[in-house]
Amino acid sequence: MASDQAIGIFDSGVGGLTVLKAIASRLPEEDLIYLGDTARVPYGTKSPETVRRYALDAAGFLVERGVKMLVVACNTASAVALDLLSEKYDLPVIGVIEPGANRARALTRTGRIGVIGTEGTVKSGAYTRAIHALDQSLDVVSVACPLFVPLAEEGWAEHAIAALAAGEYLAPIRDEIDTLVLGCTHYPLLKNTLQAALGDAIQLVDSAEETARVVSEQTGVRTGTDRKRQISFFVTDVPTRFERVGKAFLGGDLGVVEQVSLAD
Amino acid sequence: MASDQAIGIFDSGVGGLTVLKAIASRLPEEDLIYLGDTARVPYGTKSPETVRRYALDAAGFLVERGVKMLVVACNTASAVALDLLSEKYDLPVIGVIEPGANRARALTRTGRIGVIGTEGTVKSGAYTRAIHALDQSLDVVSVACPLFVPLAEEGWAEHAIAALAAGEYLAPIRDEIDTLVLGCTHYPLLKNTLQAALGDAIQLVDSAEETARVVSEQTGVRTGTDRKRQISFFVTDVPTRFERVGKAFLGGDLGVVEQVSLAD
Repeated sequence: MASDQAIGIFDSGVGGLTVLKAIASRLPEEDLIYLGDTARVPYGTKSPETVRRYALDAAGFLVERGVKMLVVACNTASAVALDLLSEKYDLPVIGVIEPGANRARALTRTGRIGVIGTEGTVKSGAYTRAIHALDQSLDVVSVACPLFVPLAEEGWAEHAIAALAAGEYLAPIRDEIDTLVLGCTHYPLLKNTLQAALGDAIQLVDSAEETARVVSEQTGVRTGTDRKRQISFFVTDVPTRFERVGKAFLGGDLGVVEQVSLAD
Repeated sequence: MASDQAIGIFDSGVGGLTVLKAIASRLPEEDLIYLGDTARVPYGTKSPETVRRYALDAAGFLVERGVKMLVVACNTASAVALDLLSEKYDLPVIGVIEPGANRARALTRTGRIGVIGTEGTVKSGAYTRAIHALDQSLDVVSVACPLFVPLAEEGWAEHAIAALAAGEYLAPIRDEIDTLVLGCTHYPLLKNTLQAALGDAIQLVDSAEETARVVSEQTGVRTGTDRKRQISFFVTDVPTRFERVGKAFLGGDLGVVEQVSLAD
């Protein structure tokens, strides 16, 4: 797998940049191509049929550019389109759900795991299925937190409003779990707020971090080649907002972001 | 204009239902066709080019169904696509911006008007232009409030979180204005929260209400025909979420909602 082809990563928007950032940090010599489907963002409130159609468009774009691996850095698309993409393409296809599920299972002591995500991810039941595929005896409770994405994009991830929203969303499950999976790529920005709302006894699982771990295991880390890697960014709407909001997700400027047209 | 053809109304999602509700109440005998482009919602964070493309698709769908008037019940689309639609179609095309601008100008005493809306609407400067076209001497200050749409859709329009967000967004303009235009079709649900954050001295302009006034003036109110009117709903994604969230916007069940495919 240590070819010079890039790793392709897609998401509905900026959220997947947390996954890209984690992969970039673990694999410093790999080329990365990121596609944010910003003309049709978000996927989280859309139906499985529609999200599958969008995921096929996005994956098609990356495959045409010759990537060696597809990372679906979007929980909603991972939940409903991963099998479809694995069948269609003769490449490793890695989603963000299984890595998070694996980690949650490894961490929990009480066997009670919470999952938070968008409406689409929670409704899909994908985390519950993935966790139960590992261990049927684990309890999983899920809560949709639709405010967290706009809060993160507004730069209010650590604002009192985010704390209030976190309290509201997590109150029903806080006393029932010992591990919480952040089932949305935006949520790593809210880590401090979530940890404060939950208390230190509850462990957070960062799906972005876990996905990067799996990607680096499959790719193998190349070192010492002095290779200067490239990271390319593509979006389906004009890049202005992606560039601005993306900074907070990547922790720095993105450089050149190119607008492209998918099927629609 | 008192033909039996329906009035066509479109929005990116459920927000335009506040406009439909206001029109339905003023024109009890008119057939109405509503299209929510829920597969591509929201428009407010997308570029003018992309929103124009989407607006053409939506208007095309309604025109094919033989409507006698097009109501663009979406501030973002009204801001960037109204001229385009007026040129393309030989029908009255009514947006939500001019009616709100007219009302704000009639109400203000100090000549200082605030406008709140999505990022797209505020960035377009459409309200400022529309208000200045009426009276160049009026002062207009605009604030984008991206949290208000998800708050309204979450059913939290009157929650403490909405109050906190309203305080945050409005603090910079509260002391400078005497009139505030709700430049987003979701915002009528937040009226109580906004009025509480602003105090009673500031008057709110409900664009949905003002648009319905213009539509009814142009259509003419038919009465006494005992006509049983029809309201039809179409969406571009599966209707489940639209039906559920739409209830709060319409103040009751929507009845049959049909999924259709536009250009993409």
